Amino acid sequence: MIVVLRLGHRPTRDQRVTTHVALTARALGADEVWVSTPDPDLEKTIQSVVGRFGGKFKIKTGVDWRKAIKAWEGQVVHLTMYGESLSKALPTIKTKRLMIVVGAEKVPREVYDLADRNISVGNQPHSEVAALAIFLDRRGGGKKLEKGQKGRLVIVPNPRGKTVIDRSKEKTRRSPKQG
Amino acid sequence: MIVVLRLGHRPTRDQRVTTHVALTARALGADEVWVSTPDPDLEKTIQSVVGRFGGKFKIKTGVDWRKAIKAWEGQVVHLTMYGESLSKALPTIKTKRLMIVVGAEKVPREVYDLADRNISVGNQPHSEVAALAIFLDRRGGGKKLEKGQKGRLVIVPNPRGKTVIDRSKEKTRRSPKQG
Repeated sequence: MIVVLRLGHRPTRDQRVTTHVALTARALGADEVWVSTPDPDLEKTIQSVVGRFGGKFKIKTGVDWRKAIKAWEGQVVHLTMYGESLSKALPTIKTKRLMIVVGAEKVPREVYDLADRNISVGNQPHSEVAALAIFLDRRGGGKKLEKGQKGRLVIVPNPRGKTVIDRSKEKTRRSPKQG
Repeated sequence: MIVVLRLGHRPTRDQRVTTHVALTARALGADEVWVSTPDPDLEKTIQSVVGRFGGKFKIKTGVDWRKAIKAWEGQVVHLTMYGESLSKALPTIKTKRLMIVVGAEKVPREVYDLADRNISVGNQPHSEVAALAIFLDRRGGGKKLEKGQKGRLVIVPNPRGKTVIDRSKEKTRRSPKQG
């Protein structure tokens, strides 16, 4: 069970980046994303991707982050450019119940104390999307990423264009032959 | 020499995601980011980070992407969810002169033809920031990421808070003792 907890989301300003956070979490094997601010539009966007591309990924918005972190049974890892080095920390994180906290702009000081670990994916300013992607990839999520998820839409790797299979239409097309 | 070429940037809508693309490129060892749309604010944002955190990373905006791809002496890799699988493709990309193309919303068909390779970091919708991060990390950029870059501001890994050294102030503070 991996949950990504997104802090400080401002619906107008962060809509796109939080969407990237959520889809990155899903593609790399997280089970849920929880967003601290209520945002029904964001929920719809993510649920629509899950509906088309498959899997059981869930989104909750309007989550009380303080309660959520305190109530989490498992490890809580806060990704921050200020934390301890990822390559040193990663081998010591062995739990299967993991909450990964990623902030938007400024993260409250309290989060640094509530988290079990504060881990930096490089001590340089870059992106919480990149940090989450590298953390999950190095933790083994890359296998899930390449294996894909079976949804209505399946993309077949193509070196020179787009191959998208709509499995619902495939069934429809096939049915006359089967009948 | 690694250049990241960002297509389809719309200054109002994509400001934040393109900033993430640029900073991810920088942190993971790319040399430059080129953005197809003119955007002086974006340039200032990135130059300000370089000024504080160091390195020689450059940003150019208003770049004619078609000309840039055609003129590139080296390999051009377009990251797309439709392309061939990263894990298979990666060992075959050995050039040191690499252009990595990442789009915003819809990428013109022409790009798929102009690129030497169309590579998918998973055939699932997620994020060009995540795709770029994983591509560069797996290609060895992670070492650069953890090594850091020597700028005026240096962040020292800290498991429980923030340690930022301002090297310009350090010199000032030290000078009386040295005098």
